[in-house]
Amino acid sequence: MGRWEPNARERLAQAALELYGERGYEQTTVAEIARRAGLTERTYFRHYADKREVLFGGSEALRELLVNAVAEAPEPAAPMDLVVAGLDAVCAVFTDREWCRRRQAVVMANAELRERELIKLASLAATLAEALRGRGVPEPAASLASEAGIAVFKVGFERWVAPAEERTLAQLVRESLEELRAVTAGGD
Amino acid sequence: MGRWEPNARERLAQAALELYGERGYEQTTVAEIARRAGLTERTYFRHYADKREVLFGGSEALRELLVNAVAEAPEPAAPMDLVVAGLDAVCAVFTDREWCRRRQAVVMANAELRERELIKLASLAATLAEALRGRGVPEPAASLASEAGIAVFKVGFERWVAPAEERTLAQLVRESLEELRAVTAGGD
Repeated sequence: MGRWEPNARERLAQAALELYGERGYEQTTVAEIARRAGLTERTYFRHYADKREVLFGGSEALRELLVNAVAEAPEPAAPMDLVVAGLDAVCAVFTDREWCRRRQAVVMANAELRERELIKLASLAATLAEALRGRGVPEPAASLASEAGIAVFKVGFERWVAPAEERTLAQLVRESLEELRAVTAGGD
Repeated sequence: MGRWEPNARERLAQAALELYGERGYEQTTVAEIARRAGLTERTYFRHYADKREVLFGGSEALRELLVNAVAEAPEPAAPMDLVVAGLDAVCAVFTDREWCRRRQAVVMANAELRERELIKLASLAATLAEALRGRGVPEPAASLASEAGIAVFKVGFERWVAPAEERTLAQLVRESLEELRAVTAGGD
């Protein structure tokens, strides 16, 4: 965090992802990650609580972005307008598709990491529902719109990191929302 | 499992829920659950892998019901018709609302159990998506319809176990689906 460790956080995340990709998540130690980044274990633990958190470092920032975007979306706003405003803000953060592709491969290969990812997404849905209630959206509309929004984000994200996909994350999330609308409107 | 232990599985689940409600989940041991049920620890472990699983005992049966209902739904069926057929079959299993209310209170009071519940629901969504693909629904419609279906089930279930609620689970899930349709159709 001092000036003698420029970008320590990013360097550690980069080193971790490299090692997880090369050797597997289970086979990699924090000591090895720190060494690859040219830093100490002590520095690692100043930035990340454990071996897993290096892959989920942006969760708190995402949550804040989501909450602020929903709070600041212009009136009048239907519940899904608020959700879209929140998701657009979140999508704007994901600029490094190649990093996300490699991270996705590591997460999907490990049951514990897949579970952690699901829990982070569910927590994001709960945060979004709370933000919607803060904008006057009643229940159960707030919960349903949030769950739908996070489902759309999840599917859009999976498409974004697929090989050869070139559309932006924001585009794919919007398209997934349109497809959700089409699929829920049909049948029954 | 022998005839000298009639309904051992149900008695253990009942005893566990009583003790979790009285003393808290963390403070209860498997030995205490077995004793309350008038059974041995050894019998407990024949039925449940650990202290947690007694609350999630029906997951595998739910999964089978869901898969079979989707596979057997009559043609022609839109993706959401298949989802509704699956959810109707799942809803029919939940007959003891009082037990579910008490279980919900225990699960919601403990972070580990809440996480387990989310993971079971996510796994159910993945199973549902696979069943939809088996009926010829393409991606991303299969994933989106499944995520929407499980979101609707989750919200419907939470309403069903709320105090004084008298509508059936199937009704509340259907109503939640209608509300999801309304909320996703609006805005943007």
